[in-house]
Amino acid sequence: MKENAGCEIERKFLVRKLPDDLTSYPKNEIAQGYLVSLDDGLQVRLRKTGERYSLTYKRGTGNVREEREVELTANQFETLWPATDGKRLVKTRYEIRLGEHVVEIDVYHGRHEGLVVAEVEFDDEEAAKNFQRPDWLGDDVTGDPRYSNQLLAS
Amino acid sequence: MKENAGCEIERKFLVRKLPDDLTSYPKNEIAQGYLVSLDDGLQVRLRKTGERYSLTYKRGTGNVREEREVELTANQFETLWPATDGKRLVKTRYEIRLGEHVVEIDVYHGRHEGLVVAEVEFDDEEAAKNFQRPDWLGDDVTGDPRYSNQLLAS
Repeated sequence: MKENAGCEIERKFLVRKLPDDLTSYPKNEIAQGYLVSLDDGLQVRLRKTGERYSLTYKRGTGNVREEREVELTANQFETLWPATDGKRLVKTRYEIRLGEHVVEIDVYHGRHEGLVVAEVEFDDEEAAKNFQRPDWLGDDVTGDPRYSNQLLAS
Repeated sequence: MKENAGCEIERKFLVRKLPDDLTSYPKNEIAQGYLVSLDDGLQVRLRKTGERYSLTYKRGTGNVREEREVELTANQFETLWPATDGKRLVKTRYEIRLGEHVVEIDVYHGRHEGLVVAEVEFDDEEAAKNFQRPDWLGDDVTGDPRYSNQLLAS
């Protein structure tokens, strides 16, 4: 199993125009639900990506957050998942390589059908600050609560 | 791995007098820490009992609470554990069989050295109500925040 602890440095953007060939990129169906999701950024999230299951702890707000993630077995996931009732969302995540970065485009389904948000992860804050976005990415909405997954799931 | 979901029905008591032969009963050293611990009873707890690791989700207050527990691998536990820094406690738990019930006596260590609390778990609310406590158990402190583990760990 994969375990991962540390900080997550990422920026979030609106999408002005979806790439024409979007469906040709690698994609995953993601279902996620929150055991805990607080205004101050503290969250415990369950996620199913294809046949991979995980639990993620996050703390903090903005573009640098403490993050600890462990992979779960299907049994572990299914025991905890019912507790996320009412705090779930479903999205399709496309991965588009852009030079040294990967842009993750999330297309939401269900109540948020049509909402599209892009995320880019960075190695450090300097790289995050210097990132030149392509034309098709729109406003930076990092930390904007309207586009936080915890709010979209509530 | 063992998974467990459902409700927990238990009562908590002070201890008037520890059994003279306490150290002859089965016991475990328990270290636990909280990823999340809120006033309304919502908590996500990590626990190490001997060489067994678990993650438990609890919601609600009083003597009936929603509870979901999964066993963790040592790796999963160790990845998440650092996030409980400052919200931990250590106790020795003795298990004393009393007719059809098991009384768990928790003797706290560290900052709470000397504090002793007993817990009894029941199959249903009727059994919880009808429980006749032995002389050596004192006041019922079920739901009393002064004796909640989340407070003791903060």
